Amino acid sequence: MKNTTAKAMVFSEPNKEFDEKSIVIPKANEGEIVVRITYTTICTSDLHTYTGRRQSPAPCILGHEIIGTIISIDDTITTDYLGNSLKEGDLITWAVYAFDKNNPMAEKGIPQKSPNLYKYGHHTLSDTDTLNGGFATHCVLRKGTAIFKLPENLNVKSLAPLNCTHATIAGAMRLAGNLSDKNVLVTGAGMLGLSACAMAKNNGAKNVYCMDINENRLELSKSFGVNRTLTSNQAEEYFTDNDKIDVVIDTTGVPSAMETGLSVLNIGGTAVWVGAVYNQKPTQVNAEMIVRNLITIKGLHNYTPEDLKTAILFLIENHNTYPFESLVSDEYNLNELTTAFKAANNGEHYRVGIKQ
Amino acid sequence: MKNTTAKAMVFSEPNKEFDEKSIVIPKANEGEIVVRITYTTICTSDLHTYTGRRQSPAPCILGHEIIGTIISIDDTITTDYLGNSLKEGDLITWAVYAFDKNNPMAEKGIPQKSPNLYKYGHHTLSDTDTLNGGFATHCVLRKGTAIFKLPENLNVKSLAPLNCTHATIAGAMRLAGNLSDKNVLVTGAGMLGLSACAMAKNNGAKNVYCMDINENRLELSKSFGVNRTLTSNQAEEYFTDNDKIDVVIDTTGVPSAMETGLSVLNIGGTAVWVGAVYNQKPTQVNAEMIVRNLITIKGLHNYTPEDLKTAILFLIENHNTYPFESLVSDEYNLNELTTAFKAANNGEHYRVGIKQ
Repeated sequence: MKNTTAKAMVFSEPNKEFDEKSIVIPKANEGEIVVRITYTTICTSDLHTYTGRRQSPAPCILGHEIIGTIISIDDTITTDYLGNSLKEGDLITWAVYAFDKNNPMAEKGIPQKSPNLYKYGHHTLSDTDTLNGGFATHCVLRKGTAIFKLPENLNVKSLAPLNCTHATIAGAMRLAGNLSDKNVLVTGAGMLGLSACAMAKNNGAKNVYCMDINENRLELSKSFGVNRTLTSNQAEEYFTDNDKIDVVIDTTGVPSAMETGLSVLNIGGTAVWVGAVYNQKPTQVNAEMIVRNLITIKGLHNYTPEDLKTAILFLIENHNTYPFESLVSDEYNLNELTTAFKAANNGEHYRVGIKQ
Repeated sequence: MKNTTAKAMVFSEPNKEFDEKSIVIPKANEGEIVVRITYTTICTSDLHTYTGRRQSPAPCILGHEIIGTIISIDDTITTDYLGNSLKEGDLITWAVYAFDKNNPMAEKGIPQKSPNLYKYGHHTLSDTDTLNGGFATHCVLRKGTAIFKLPENLNVKSLAPLNCTHATIAGAMRLAGNLSDKNVLVTGAGMLGLSACAMAKNNGAKNVYCMDINENRLELSKSFGVNRTLTSNQAEEYFTDNDKIDVVIDTTGVPSAMETGLSVLNIGGTAVWVGAVYNQKPTQVNAEMIVRNLITIKGLHNYTPEDLKTAILFLIENHNTYPFESLVSDEYNLNELTTAFKAANNGEHYRVGIKQ
């Protein structure tokens, strides 16, 4: 290793400056990889922590939408999740959590809810537990982290959100099932929503509709596979007069949007909810309609390693079709992190990037 | 055919006497079977029609939980749904609806929502469309009805509810998936609920819990595979202190019961709703919990022919294990139908039977 010391920007409490901290880079222990971080994007949940809307451990190195190159790899690891050989210098992404594959939740197919989950960018920083988030020069990948080698020809701005936004949406697509020849409505044209529009189109949807309250975001969604955009107050009337929806993907978490989504579903339709990750008033569900119309609602939080694989293959295939890199519309250096968070918080950017 | 005239008890308007009517038994046309009805049970939805809580066509021959013997069969029909040969004199049950298998809903696997569905016991009686319900001596099975030959050694009281109660619950079990080693909660200890308890136990559930507001019904549920009963106000506390629930089957349709069911689900749990077939206030759903706990809600109305098959095989295997015949605790002749409905409406019986 060329540098023995890493630099991290440490979160201590909401709305305060990040503290720059030097941390000795540890040796990769059994099952571990040390990564030099290439690029990190500020996820909405990082913003929620920074502004105090989400409870997080502190002190903490935030940031989990990360890519980096291997600088040290324990020799028990020879391949990535897909069986590709791994070596120093390889560009990689990884699941946002490390887990023990023998625990009951993992065996049920929900590794992201394993007990004692180790979540990058969401773990207390201590003297013995360091370099575990994205807003630093380096990250140590713990044993039990699903690793994926990335191609070198893709834009880093497209790659960084893979292991959060796109992997979660790949999970939503898994729950949605076969979309071939189906009408899909995506509620919310944020980062998750645009990813959902593009993946639904790529998965063979007949029509992809996008609903939001923001007309600029709706306009942009047309570059992500959307056939028709609808403001929130247009949707119910539109789908009364036209074909109903087979699958709705909610990325807003807003009860009224989820209620609208359910109301426009066809008989046998499915709603996949991924946006409701914050405290909110109850969603009003017409249970008689759920029963008589044989509706399914599926909630999803985070994703499985298989979902991350799906997301990576999707991006490799479609990076020229959908302009994902354009969604990182502002960029800062690591030592400008406080400024970067303030910029990200103004609501104008899908993502703000931290380059290194 | 020995008799050329059938007798039907005709519903004209809520809470009025049924009118006895003589109807000429038609010849079985292409794809049709004429049945001499053996036994019919009064379903809760029949009661809802009779008391005016459900909108139904009129005049109408109610009754759809029926069994009967073939007295005339069109020669285009040679076998039942399972491929067993069919002939005059065979005891049969049948799906509560006739459908065209080439319509889009049937092709989607939801034949019960086919356009122009012909529903027995729920179809206007006219000069040209007769003998289409269970409270008559005969019924004409229309083309597109899934027919099942029944064994002769089972009690008719167990057999009559097969094509409504038990088939619907078999559909709920299909949606619930593999129950092996799982904790199952059934909300509601009515006819649907007891069927759900027994089928869940038979499908390998580790523990079957039953929740109701009626302690007598809860006590009875112990004969239908239930390990532990809970009154509605005990459930949340109990499952906070003990293992949570993997699958909840709601047969009540009561919003508070569905809300309790969701609140006691384990991560990755599934709620199957079948009870909410009447107008009601919205169910309050905590969408954040649905998302963070990866909960699935599935609505089901009616069933597929495959579900009826599952129900029949279940009953053949388990008719000595669970005392289903005891649930028909009062019995009348066809010409006493008004008295029978009044008895059924007093709330003391799971089912009242009409023998012939």
